[in-house]
Amino acid sequence: MFESAELGHRTSKAAYEAEVPRLREALLDAQYDVAAAGRFPVLAIISGVEGAGKGETVQRLNEWMDPRHIRTHGFIAPSSEEAERPPMYRFWRALPPRGRIGIFFGSWYTMPILERAFNRIDDPDLDRAVNEIRHLERMLYNEGMLMVKFWFHLSKETERERLRELEKSPRTRWRVTKRDWALFKRYDKLREVSEHVLRETSTFEAPWIVVDGSDRRYRELTTGRVLLEAMRRRLDAPETAPSVTAAPIAPQMDNVVLLRNLDVDRSLDKKTYGEQLEKYQGRLSLLVRSRAFRRRSLVLVFEGTDAAGKGGAIRRVTGALDPRNYRIVPVAAPSDEERAQAYLWRFWRHAPGQGEIVIFDRSWYGRVLVERVEDLANEADWMRAYDEINEFEEQWLRNGAILCKFWLQIGRDEQLRRFKHREQTRFKRFKITQEDWRNRKKWAAYEQAVADMVDRTSTEIAPWTLVEANDKHFARVKVLRTICRALKNAV
Amino acid sequence: MFESAELGHRTSKAAYEAEVPRLREALLDAQYDVAAAGRFPVLAIISGVEGAGKGETVQRLNEWMDPRHIRTHGFIAPSSEEAERPPMYRFWRALPPRGRIGIFFGSWYTMPILERAFNRIDDPDLDRAVNEIRHLERMLYNEGMLMVKFWFHLSKETERERLRELEKSPRTRWRVTKRDWALFKRYDKLREVSEHVLRETSTFEAPWIVVDGSDRRYRELTTGRVLLEAMRRRLDAPETAPSVTAAPIAPQMDNVVLLRNLDVDRSLDKKTYGEQLEKYQGRLSLLVRSRAFRRRSLVLVFEGTDAAGKGGAIRRVTGALDPRNYRIVPVAAPSDEERAQAYLWRFWRHAPGQGEIVIFDRSWYGRVLVERVEDLANEADWMRAYDEINEFEEQWLRNGAILCKFWLQIGRDEQLRRFKHREQTRFKRFKITQEDWRNRKKWAAYEQAVADMVDRTSTEIAPWTLVEANDKHFARVKVLRTICRALKNAV
Repeated sequence: MFESAELGHRTSKAAYEAEVPRLREALLDAQYDVAAAGRFPVLAIISGVEGAGKGETVQRLNEWMDPRHIRTHGFIAPSSEEAERPPMYRFWRALPPRGRIGIFFGSWYTMPILERAFNRIDDPDLDRAVNEIRHLERMLYNEGMLMVKFWFHLSKETERERLRELEKSPRTRWRVTKRDWALFKRYDKLREVSEHVLRETSTFEAPWIVVDGSDRRYRELTTGRVLLEAMRRRLDAPETAPSVTAAPIAPQMDNVVLLRNLDVDRSLDKKTYGEQLEKYQGRLSLLVRSRAFRRRSLVLVFEGTDAAGKGGAIRRVTGALDPRNYRIVPVAAPSDEERAQAYLWRFWRHAPGQGEIVIFDRSWYGRVLVERVEDLANEADWMRAYDEINEFEEQWLRNGAILCKFWLQIGRDEQLRRFKHREQTRFKRFKITQEDWRNRKKWAAYEQAVADMVDRTSTEIAPWTLVEANDKHFARVKVLRTICRALKNAV
Repeated sequence: MFESAELGHRTSKAAYEAEVPRLREALLDAQYDVAAAGRFPVLAIISGVEGAGKGETVQRLNEWMDPRHIRTHGFIAPSSEEAERPPMYRFWRALPPRGRIGIFFGSWYTMPILERAFNRIDDPDLDRAVNEIRHLERMLYNEGMLMVKFWFHLSKETERERLRELEKSPRTRWRVTKRDWALFKRYDKLREVSEHVLRETSTFEAPWIVVDGSDRRYRELTTGRVLLEAMRRRLDAPETAPSVTAAPIAPQMDNVVLLRNLDVDRSLDKKTYGEQLEKYQGRLSLLVRSRAFRRRSLVLVFEGTDAAGKGGAIRRVTGALDPRNYRIVPVAAPSDEERAQAYLWRFWRHAPGQGEIVIFDRSWYGRVLVERVEDLANEADWMRAYDEINEFEEQWLRNGAILCKFWLQIGRDEQLRRFKHREQTRFKRFKITQEDWRNRKKWAAYEQAVADMVDRTSTEIAPWTLVEANDKHFARVKVLRTICRALKNAV
């Protein structure tokens, strides 16, 4: 993989100076076209060995293009907010929005490669990290991102020379640190690991460009040209994202049975309700105050039929909690900042810190529920969402989150009764809109969407809890009990 | 101030239970009206002595209203991102947007009061903190926020009893910490300081409500009633913010002389430019790498006539910097999340961390420039902005920021020449729009706005640098030299 990057490519000064003005103009032009189109973000990932000119090239790209519309991120030590959250959090928050160019100096590749090379993780860990990256990049591609990944390479001999050279001059000496030499000592292992990772992640969606880093002019021109070509091709290409998947979901009428067989009428009498409510609220309150929970977090997802009582159930949960520790995220239409990013971005920004509780009132499942049924997302987009969501939840879980997902189900008649009641009660009037009545007409389509959702995202690590909700008492107690059990098993 | 809160107000169980259902319904109703109107945010600040039921009341408010549209913030230890920034940063990022209710449990009052009571700061420090708070609250009021500040009070005797009582039961024992007793030991001093601070900050814009905390039912009802009344009054009031200031700015034709007398034609020959550029870029590059700068930050503000060369000047600055350390914030139309907040919110979110450089391409001065000239802000709003901006900059400076503000000025003829050139150059075409031509017609109005801006915001701690910019070489070198001097003086 690195052989051709060790041939010692060089560009003469004359050739460089002849090309740069044209290249610069074309890059600027492409940059403004990207901004004007506002259709997709551009992400350039700059990785590679130390001393191969990564920093200088990033500098040059900022010089050639309009730096006001580029955001360069160097990922060094994470802040405390970042350190508490899943490793991908800091990258998610740095992703460029549509129309902008982001340059990642260091990226999600840095830690896995370094940790493997220094034997802090083993091969299966590395494979998992690689899988996670492939997954992320495929999703970003599907969400419209143009991603260009550069790997700056130097042969062992050239790297040694380069570091020595930098150390000689007082102007550049500061750039060579002990860490650089420590890395150099691991050159062979780093090379082996990098090559493996690059091979595994050089995909159709986000191929690697290996750049011979030995000559400044060559590597700058190469990087500039590749970036230009990538932006230009994408700008000129018609928008033809696949809108249907290879194979449709066969209408599996049988999987809605699960939902239909739910005995939505299960109930609790008032007295039992009072006792159980107190019992589980007390238990919940103790569990989240436990020492063990301080290093964990709790994520609750509430979905359900309209008027199924999500709000009331949430209130019975928060009734047991200290308002300083929880945050409720009501999920409605995205803001324009959210719309300019990949779908999951708006949920990543609410990732809980240690000891925090985040309650989603509707959630990322919107894509496979309302967006599917109302044709707001095309089939390819909501079909890939199942897989993306599973991966997303896995990352949060691996970071210590305890996740409970609730689907609250009521019967059609009960829904009608509640709609009417809401229309008649002054302080509930906000809870019923024309949209609710429209949704009600699509009962069967929603039923199918829910069944598919449960089929495809109820995993052993993140199961759905179906809640029979015609009786609010029963539903609330079931929700509380489920949360208590999940917490108890975890802490 | 606290006398009437020591009378031992009580509410009987019967009275409480009779009122709560009505109060709750009315609160919910008001909450939804606030959300539907989307005109203003509501902020309830909950402060006071330990053991006075602050936490329980916050809990109750979340229970009575719809917690999905409330965001409660407890301000305990700041995160590393917050600790590096000015103290107000963490409060700014937690402010509720229009239409939402925020509850601050702990607030900008906590630290000044505690630090004074424990003699960690002295009276002048406290006065400064109080001034800063008054300033902030006045601004938030002017920006439309409804602010209700509650102080929960207990007499010394009652507080002692309360703490002992909590310690008795195993269910509540965890709530009493060593810190609570340490605070109790300072009761008298805390009372004295609090009383002083409350008196100084009980303003028309944000009055304090002192609540007798000795009886649970009384304090809950009182808080609920006050909050309800505040929301209701505000909802019912016509939108009659004053749109003009008491006294107009007299057309001070003389202050534009400063700008007009500027010799915009000052120039540098190409050779000198090359030398000076290298010299100051080298110096800048060293200065920001200095050890001392690691605990400081650099904030650059670029404003100027259209086509005055802001972008080119910024590029010469960033040419000397490591792209990982700086961030350019191009200021254009606000996003909808920004529009839902007070004006300065969109700049606070870019506050630099330690060792960081933030470059604003246009800035918070937009309010007194384009918004003033184009009538996008009314007179009262842009008039108060001068003062708000000075205060804002002072906070950043006090936190270690080094601030340079540049106004780049070119002559009218030069502007015309540049506009025409831009229209003819392909990769500069984006730089010239119909709006630029329209602005050009308002030359005199902009001149006046700039003169007033410099008059009112060029303070000794944050002076403006007027840059003669007909000759780009001269302008760029002046900018670089100014930054180097400011850094040299500071680090």
